[in-house]
Amino acid sequence: MQVLVTGGAGFLGSRLVNALLARGSIVSSSGDEESIDEILVADIGPPAQPFPDDPRLKTRYGDFSEADAANQLVSKNTGAVFHLAAIVSGEAEADFDKGMRINLEGTKKILDACRQQADCPRIVFASSVAVYGGDMPDVLDDMTALTPQTSYGSQKAMGELLVNDYSRKGFIDGRALRLPTIVVRPGKPNAAASSFASAILREPLQGQEVNCPVSRKTGVWLLSPRQVVACFLHAADLASDAWGQSRSVALPGMTVTVEEMLAALTKVAGEGVAARVRFEPDPFIEKIVYGWATRFTTERAEVMGFRADQRFEDVIEAFIEDDLGGTFVE
Amino acid sequence: MQVLVTGGAGFLGSRLVNALLARGSIVSSSGDEESIDEILVADIGPPAQPFPDDPRLKTRYGDFSEADAANQLVSKNTGAVFHLAAIVSGEAEADFDKGMRINLEGTKKILDACRQQADCPRIVFASSVAVYGGDMPDVLDDMTALTPQTSYGSQKAMGELLVNDYSRKGFIDGRALRLPTIVVRPGKPNAAASSFASAILREPLQGQEVNCPVSRKTGVWLLSPRQVVACFLHAADLASDAWGQSRSVALPGMTVTVEEMLAALTKVAGEGVAARVRFEPDPFIEKIVYGWATRFTTERAEVMGFRADQRFEDVIEAFIEDDLGGTFVE
Repeated sequence: MQVLVTGGAGFLGSRLVNALLARGSIVSSSGDEESIDEILVADIGPPAQPFPDDPRLKTRYGDFSEADAANQLVSKNTGAVFHLAAIVSGEAEADFDKGMRINLEGTKKILDACRQQADCPRIVFASSVAVYGGDMPDVLDDMTALTPQTSYGSQKAMGELLVNDYSRKGFIDGRALRLPTIVVRPGKPNAAASSFASAILREPLQGQEVNCPVSRKTGVWLLSPRQVVACFLHAADLASDAWGQSRSVALPGMTVTVEEMLAALTKVAGEGVAARVRFEPDPFIEKIVYGWATRFTTERAEVMGFRADQRFEDVIEAFIEDDLGGTFVE
Repeated sequence: MQVLVTGGAGFLGSRLVNALLARGSIVSSSGDEESIDEILVADIGPPAQPFPDDPRLKTRYGDFSEADAANQLVSKNTGAVFHLAAIVSGEAEADFDKGMRINLEGTKKILDACRQQADCPRIVFASSVAVYGGDMPDVLDDMTALTPQTSYGSQKAMGELLVNDYSRKGFIDGRALRLPTIVVRPGKPNAAASSFASAILREPLQGQEVNCPVSRKTGVWLLSPRQVVACFLHAADLASDAWGQSRSVALPGMTVTVEEMLAALTKVAGEGVAARVRFEPDPFIEKIVYGWATRFTTERAEVMGFRADQRFEDVIEAFIEDDLGGTFVE
């Protein structure tokens, strides 16, 4: 079968593509494990790290939300779709119409293209904890109302409603995963308010000093890149009836404070590395970050077999192994 | 100022139009009470009861979701919009694409037309308790997750997300009201599963026998036509900052069982009238109705000044007065 990965050249998408290539098979909507003949990567441009040379890999670079593009990505051979392509939170807030076009209308086009196929393909949709916001209970669960306070979060919440209703109608076989903050992200710090959560680990391990703009007690609800890729694959493998009346699930994660992150960094890499983090508060970042939900109960996800990381030290060690070639600057 | 009422020829819309004509003024987004120069009624066709002859009243019949129609309804004079037009639940379920076109895309077109105006108009959006569904807590509140189990409910939930995000961005000044089941509806029984809740009062009062397809213990979460019109007007009058971080609110209502409805009917109209209701269960209707949420806490709405009916007898008496010309068949 063919597997489509939108946003497949991005940070998470490309890891998912590599995991699919390595695994070589996926459970189809018939319930059987089927070998993957082709992985079609759709993204706006090529990945930061080139893909391996693999005859199963096809790439299509361009805007999937334009005109008829979605219909050209999905065909009768499409057995599974991982829909990760999105305008990220900062950009969706700055350019509202672009966010709506890609995150809402683009998602609908992908679902509609799937709906036209005789064999209802499985679709795993990347949603986000950004669907939560505003006045929230101390501990969130799957029955907490979605009251997003960003356009990105609103568009993801609408995407979830589409995935649920299209699935209920039998048009698709969808699954929507609410992703925690992903730590450790490789690359450079960016304008995202969550950037610090990766930067305070990533930069020190590469010998660079870094500022933490929030207090040591700040908690982050997080999941590692390895574990989120495992969750994507697990979501596709699950039988339709494992989802019950909702196709959405908040993925498990762990709540780790900045203090705990640095303690784990000290344990893994030594005091000298952790000492490269300085604390200079940034009121702008603080205001955003202190409004985030940091504590969740994710019983539903756990019963369904989704798993979070077990120890934060493992998250750091996996980053060193996967992104720093196994070494760090002491 | 001009007031636009989409769905203004419908059962609730036409009552709202009459209430606006009678009141003659409405609070504009500037916070001042302004007189209404024009009420523009947009609907697919004329109302069942002709509107009064009033120079302030303009009508535009046609599909507001088509091409540029929304832009022709909203102008710089538009000070308030009541957006009630929708494909109802049964039809949205039977014709998915029509529901999406009117209930989701049409709503977005109305919001976009308003966004283009320099003076951000107030928009009151009619949502529904159909946004709730599936596995729900025993008593619902404003923080209960929206997990609709119909396309209508999904489209209303997406409409609420749009109203919220457009308002947060300052594009519009929106308010979304989740309406309970409206009882007593005038007219004929229809295919809606909730049809019995009005029929078991309406038909006996007109001398007709009627079947109740659900048990006497069945509860209904309801609001009268008079009270919902009062809530629409109150929603438009409220200052923007009364809404806090959410522009959605579940309206107050009352939970009344079939048994309690018939007791009130006996009190108001006598035993002979109530005896016109017979009980023959309909498993199809039962299955739908028993899945509905019947108990809510609506503290947020009450703090904001929204009010439910006080006594169910009043609901029946108002129906006799408003829809039966003050008399009934004993």
